[in-house]
Amino acid sequence: MTRFNDWRDQVFDIIYKTDTKAGKAFDVLLILSILLSVAAVMLDSVERINERHGTWLYSLEWFFTVLFTIEYFVRIWVNPKPFKYIFSFYGLVDLLSVLPTYIALFIPGMNEFLVIRLLRVLRIFRVLKLSTYIHQANFLLSALNSSRQKITVFLFFVVTLATIFGAVLYVIEGPENGFTSIPKSIYWAIVTLTTVGYGDISPHTPAGQAIASVVMILGYSIIAVPTGIFTAELANKMQKEGLTFKRCAGCDKTDHKAIATYCYSCGAKL
Amino acid sequence: MTRFNDWRDQVFDIIYKTDTKAGKAFDVLLILSILLSVAAVMLDSVERINERHGTWLYSLEWFFTVLFTIEYFVRIWVNPKPFKYIFSFYGLVDLLSVLPTYIALFIPGMNEFLVIRLLRVLRIFRVLKLSTYIHQANFLLSALNSSRQKITVFLFFVVTLATIFGAVLYVIEGPENGFTSIPKSIYWAIVTLTTVGYGDISPHTPAGQAIASVVMILGYSIIAVPTGIFTAELANKMQKEGLTFKRCAGCDKTDHKAIATYCYSCGAKL
Amino acid sequence: MTRFNDWRDQVFDIIYKTDTKAGKAFDVLLILSILLSVAAVMLDSVERINERHGTWLYSLEWFFTVLFTIEYFVRIWVNPKPFKYIFSFYGLVDLLSVLPTYIALFIPGMNEFLVIRLLRVLRIFRVLKLSTYIHQANFLLSALNSSRQKITVFLFFVVTLATIFGAVLYVIEGPENGFTSIPKSIYWAIVTLTTVGYGDISPHTPAGQAIASVVMILGYSIIAVPTGIFTAELANKMQKEGLTFKRCAGCDKTDHKAIATYCYSCGAKL
Amino acid sequence: MTRFNDWRDQVFDIIYKTDTKAGKAFDVLLILSILLSVAAVMLDSVERINERHGTWLYSLEWFFTVLFTIEYFVRIWVNPKPFKYIFSFYGLVDLLSVLPTYIALFIPGMNEFLVIRLLRVLRIFRVLKLSTYIHQANFLLSALNSSRQKITVFLFFVVTLATIFGAVLYVIEGPENGFTSIPKSIYWAIVTLTTVGYGDISPHTPAGQAIASVVMILGYSIIAVPTGIFTAELANKMQKEGLTFKRCAGCDKTDHKAIATYCYSCGAKL
Repeated sequence: MTRFNDWRDQVFDIIYKTDTKAGKAFDVLLILSILLSVAAVMLDSVERINERHGTWLYSLEWFFTVLFTIEYFVRIWVNPKPFKYIFSFYGLVDLLSVLPTYIALFIPGMNEFLVIRLLRVLRIFRVLKLSTYIHQANFLLSALNSSRQKITVFLFFVVTLATIFGAVLYVIEGPENGFTSIPKSIYWAIVTLTTVGYGDISPHTPAGQAIASVVMILGYSIIAVPTGIFTAELANKMQKEGLTFKRCAGCDKTDHKAIATYCYSCGAKL
Repeated sequence: MTRFNDWRDQVFDIIYKTDTKAGKAFDVLLILSILLSVAAVMLDSVERINERHGTWLYSLEWFFTVLFTIEYFVRIWVNPKPFKYIFSFYGLVDLLSVLPTYIALFIPGMNEFLVIRLLRVLRIFRVLKLSTYIHQANFLLSALNSSRQKITVFLFFVVTLATIFGAVLYVIEGPENGFTSIPKSIYWAIVTLTTVGYGDISPHTPAGQAIASVVMILGYSIIAVPTGIFTAELANKMQKEGLTFKRCAGCDKTDHKAIATYCYSCGAKL
Repeated sequence: MTRFNDWRDQVFDIIYKTDTKAGKAFDVLLILSILLSVAAVMLDSVERINERHGTWLYSLEWFFTVLFTIEYFVRIWVNPKPFKYIFSFYGLVDLLSVLPTYIALFIPGMNEFLVIRLLRVLRIFRVLKLSTYIHQANFLLSALNSSRQKITVFLFFVVTLATIFGAVLYVIEGPENGFTSIPKSIYWAIVTLTTVGYGDISPHTPAGQAIASVVMILGYSIIAVPTGIFTAELANKMQKEGLTFKRCAGCDKTDHKAIATYCYSCGAKL
Repeated sequence: MTRFNDWRDQVFDIIYKTDTKAGKAFDVLLILSILLSVAAVMLDSVERINERHGTWLYSLEWFFTVLFTIEYFVRIWVNPKPFKYIFSFYGLVDLLSVLPTYIALFIPGMNEFLVIRLLRVLRIFRVLKLSTYIHQANFLLSALNSSRQKITVFLFFVVTLATIFGAVLYVIEGPENGFTSIPKSIYWAIVTLTTVGYGDISPHTPAGQAIASVVMILGYSIIAVPTGIFTAELANKMQKEGLTFKRCAGCDKTDHKAIATYCYSCGAKL
C-alpha cells in the first residue's frame, strides 16, 4: 500500500511540478498537445479545410479529447485534495476542454458550442505558472494591481466620454449616415476614441467631421493616461527593487534604502 | 418647528452625504436609477426595440422623470443655500436630466432633443465625488493640470501639422480622390495623424501615398509627446508624495520618507 | 528727424514686442486676422460655400491680403536690419502669405497654387514665440533634440521593417488582392505598422493575414520605443530642474545637486 | 609579395572600416548604390513604369548586380577569414542581394522570386554599424534585451486574448458577417486589439459590437504595458549611466555622478 502511495506521489510530482526531469518532459509534451489540439480546432472551422481533411481532424480531436480526459482523471486521482482541484480555475478549464466533444456526440448540430474547447489555450498558463517567466508576469500584475483604481477611474471617464460624444453624433449625423441608434453611435465613439477606426460608420456632415476630429485628438492624447499610470507604477516598483528589505530590530520596518545604515523610523542601527 | 428642521437636516445628510448607512443606500439606489434610465433612453433609440417595447419604455421614462423631478425639488428644499445648488454644475445637470421629457410633451416632434437626457450619466460623477476613487481622480487631474501648458503647445502643433498636410494632400489628390475641400482634407489629416484611419478618404496617387506615409510615421512617433509629458509629471508626483524634504542636521540628507522620524543615513532625529 | 525715429521705434516695439499694452493689443488683432483669413481660405475651397458666398469671400481675401501686405512693408521699414528680416523664416512666411493672391490676379486658373496662403497659419507661431508658452515649447524641443539620434535610429528601423514586410506581402498577396506594386505594398506596411489601418488595401490570403498579424503586433509593441525614449529624456530633464546651477568657484562646474554643499568635481565648498 | 599583401590590407581597410578618408568615401558610395538599386527594384514592380522604362531599369539592375558581385568577391578575397565572412549574417545578405538576378536569367518566369533582392536594404545596417549612431542603437537594444522576458509574457497574453475573443466573435457573428472561420476571427481580434482597425471585417450584431467595444478599450489600455516596460527600463539605464555607486567614506552617500571625484555632500575624496 505504501509502495502504491509512493507511486502516486511520483505521478503527482510529474504532473503538478516541474523540478524533476520527468516533470519537465511532461510539461513540454502537454504544451505540444495543447497547441496541436487548438490548431486542429481552429483549422476545422475553415470550411475548405474541413471539407478535405474533416475526417482526419475529427480523429485527431478524439485522440486529444481521450488523452486530456485521462489526464483529467489522473490529476483528480493523484491530488491529495481532489475536490479543491475540481473546483479550482484550472480544474474547470480542464473539464471544459474535453466536455464539449462528448456532449456534441449526443446532441448533434451544436457546432458553435464546440468552440469552448479553445479554452484549452488557457491550460498553457498552468505550465507557465511554474516557469521562470512567472516572476516577470507577477511583477507586471502587481504593478497593474497597484494602478487598478487609477485605471478604473480612467475607464469610467472614457465610457462617459463615449456616451456623450456618441449621443452628440447621433443627433448631428442621424440614421441616414449610419448612426441608426444611440448604442450604435456609442460603438462608433469607442471605435474612434480608441483610435481603432474601422470606418464601417463614419461621419459625413461637416459638423460631424469637426466633432469627430475633436474625439480623435482627445483619444490620441488621453492614451497618455493609462500609459503614464502604468509606467510610473512600474518605474516605482523597479526602484523599490533597489531597496533592501532588512528588518529593523526596533520597529519591524522592512523597506529601507539599500544605502541606509539606520532605521528611518526608530533610529536603531540596522 | 425644530423637529421639522431636524428632519430636513436628516434628509440633507442622506441625499448629499455618504457617511451614514441611509446615505450609502440612497447613493446605490440613485446610481441604479441613473443607469436604468440611461439604458432606457439608449434602447428607445433602437428602431426595432422602439417598435416592440415603445409603450413600456415610455412608461419607464416617465417613472424615472417623475422620480428625478421629486429628487430635484427635495434637493432644493433641504439645501441651506438652494440658489447656489440650482446654478451649480450638478444642479444644471439635474435640471437638464428631466426638463426635455416635459418639453417634448408640449412641443412634439423634437425627438432628437430628447437626447439631452443622456446627460444623466454625468450625475454618476456626483456620487463618485464622495467615494474613495475621488482621491485617485484628483491625483490624475492634478498631474494633467501641471502638464496643461505643455499639452496645449502639443495640441496646437498637431492642429498646425494637420492644416498644412491637409492642404498639401488637397492639392496633390484633388476632389477626384475624395479630397473635395480643404476642411475635409484637414479632417483626413487628423484621421491619419491620430492613427485612427477610417479609410473613408484615403490617398490614391503615389505622391499622396508617400506624403501620407510621412504623416503616419509622424503621428506614430509624436504620440510619444503627450505620453512622455504626462508620464514624467505623474512619476514626479508619485515620487514626491512619498518623500519629505526635511534637511537632516547631522548629514544634510534631504530625501527622507514622509513617515521618517530618524535620518536613514546618520540616525539623527529629524 | 529724431522725433520721426522715435515714432519708428515705437512702431517697432508694437509690432515686434509684447511687453507694452499696444504690443499685446496688436498681437491679439494679428492672431484674429490670421485665423479669420485662414478660415476664409478654407471655406472658399468648399464648393457649396464658394458658389453662394464666393464674391463675399473674395473681397475678404483681398482685405486681408492688403492688410498683411501693409504689415509686411511696415515690418521691413521699422526693422533696423530689414534684409535679415526679409530672408528670415518668418519673413519668407509673411511674403508667401500674400504673394499668391497677387500672382493669381495675373496668371488665372492656378487655384491650387492659392493654397500656399495657408502658410499664414505659421505666422501664429511668431506671436506665440513671445508668450509664456514658449518656455514649455522649448523644454519639449530640447528633450526631442536630446533624443534625436535615438529616434532617427528607430525611424530607420521602422522604414526597413516596412520595406521588408511590404515586399513579403507583395509576393504573398500579389496584384489580384490590391498589392499591385512594391511601393504600394510598402505604403500598406506603413499603414499597418503605424496602426492607422485605412483598410483600402488589406490582405485576403490566410498567409498574408498571418504575416499582417505579426506586423500589427510588432507595430503595437514598438510604439513603446519612441515613447520610452522621449519619456525617459523628459523625466531626465525634469529631474535636472531639481538641480541647482551654482557655479563652483574652483572648477566652474554648474550642475550640482540641489542639496550639495561641496563641488563634486574639485571638492571646494559651494 | 609583401607589397601585394600590403595592398590587400589597404583594400580591407577601405571596405571593412570607416576611419580612413577612403573608407568613408566607399561607405557613402555603397549606401548610394544600395538605395539606387533598391529604388530600381521597387519602381520596376510598378506596371506603368515597367512598361515605359523596363529596358532602362533592367540595364541598371545588371549594372548594380555586377557591381555588388565584384564587391562580394573582393570582400572574400581581402578578408583574412573568408569563410567566417561567407557564412556570417552580412555575408549571406550580400549573396542573396545578387543571386536572384543570375538565377532569373536561367529560370525565367520567377519574377516574384526577384523580390529577395530587396534584402539589399539590410546592407545599409553594416555601414551604420560603424557609425556614431550605433551607440544609440546598442543602448536601445540593451534596454529591449533587459525587458525581453516581460515583453514575451505580454505578447503571449495578447495572443491568448486574441484567440479567446476571436472565438467568441466567431460564435456571435458567424460566417454571414464575415467571421468565416476561427483563424480569420483571430485575425480580426488582432486587427482590433492592436487598434489597427482595417474595417475589412467588423461586427454587425449588437452583441458583437458590444464585445468588440470591450476588445478595443482593452487594446487601447494595455498598450500601456509594453510602453511602461520599455520606458522604465530605459529610464533606469539612463540614470545608471550617469551615476557611479562608489560609497563615500565620510558620509556613506552612494549616488555620485560618474565624473565626480569628491563627495557632493561632505567634500571627502571618493
